[in-house]
Amino acid sequence: MELLEERIRKDGIVKEGNVLKVDNFLNHQMDIELFDEMGKEFKRLFADKPINKILTIEASGIGIACVVARHFHVPVVFAKKTQSINIDGEVYSSKVESFTHKRVYDVIVSKKYLSPDDHVLIIDDFLANGCAVNGLIEIIEKSGATVEGIGIAVEKGWQIGGKTLRDQGYQLESLAIVESMDPATGEIVFRH
Amino acid sequence: MELLEERIRKDGIVKEGNVLKVDNFLNHQMDIELFDEMGKEFKRLFADKPINKILTIEASGIGIACVVARHFHVPVVFAKKTQSINIDGEVYSSKVESFTHKRVYDVIVSKKYLSPDDHVLIIDDFLANGCAVNGLIEIIEKSGATVEGIGIAVEKGWQIGGKTLRDQGYQLESLAIVESMDPATGEIVFRH
Repeated sequence: MELLEERIRKDGIVKEGNVLKVDNFLNHQMDIELFDEMGKEFKRLFADKPINKILTIEASGIGIACVVARHFHVPVVFAKKTQSINIDGEVYSSKVESFTHKRVYDVIVSKKYLSPDDHVLIIDDFLANGCAVNGLIEIIEKSGATVEGIGIAVEKGWQIGGKTLRDQGYQLESLAIVESMDPATGEIVFRH
Repeated sequence: MELLEERIRKDGIVKEGNVLKVDNFLNHQMDIELFDEMGKEFKRLFADKPINKILTIEASGIGIACVVARHFHVPVVFAKKTQSINIDGEVYSSKVESFTHKRVYDVIVSKKYLSPDDHVLIIDDFLANGCAVNGLIEIIEKSGATVEGIGIAVEKGWQIGGKTLRDQGYQLESLAIVESMDPATGEIVFRH
């Protein structure tokens, strides 16, 4: 998506350690008009899928998912991160490793909000190794619902998440795939 | 706001210990079309304010804030909860006590995203004792920005937060104010 790539070139900051900071417009300050354009594009890409619910994960997926959901006319459910052990029987859960925070979270969704009738689009801001998306897929499968697709804002193309999910047969649409980036020059190359 | 009150009556669950569960449509599963109507109403209520930014707090404020922001054509910034001690000089921070989680969080916003030029509308899902909103006000004041108003979905009218903020002179608009609720009967009375 040209608009998103331009914005990443303009406002993204490449840092040592494979870090691409896009907190100017994507995951701390959020450009809602950009999100709205992303929503239109996801709707075009998943037009033939019978999506009735969007699932995302707190916190930075929520804003994108909610603005995108307007284009699908469906509710959003966000999975909650928790470190509490006493998870009762009323939730679906999975474990997700966070590289940013160097921790393993339990991620939970109430059983009330996913069922075998649901056809789910997963939305998240970033895809790298795929831990968060795999956790959401595990939750959807436990509920008996169907994964109709995965919509990502920014994929780090050299990490394993995208390839693994595509090899498994999921329709994964990343609006910008970063092929490589150079912290010395700030140069960012996109896959097309 | 009639539409929100009706929805709380229909889907809200009153529990012992002053708990009103609205996770069916507000803060776990999220009804985006309802949020859109809430956005229209906030725009009407704050029409005369020169708002150029919306500030909320993760996680459950983010969805409402992003859908509301479309009606103001402004970006959203969300304050992040952190328990890390090593907060560097690049953020504004305040301490917020969470009654739900019985913890004190550091709440932070990057200094890049609030400045004396900003005129800020605070948006959150719930107002009870006002701890979260007071933390956001403290952050806005530290940045030199102006608090133009506070927009809340559901206020617990018998708790101190609303009265304190109104007494301080803030324009606080809660779309539904619960005056009282009865866990035995499930009855909910709204203030008008």
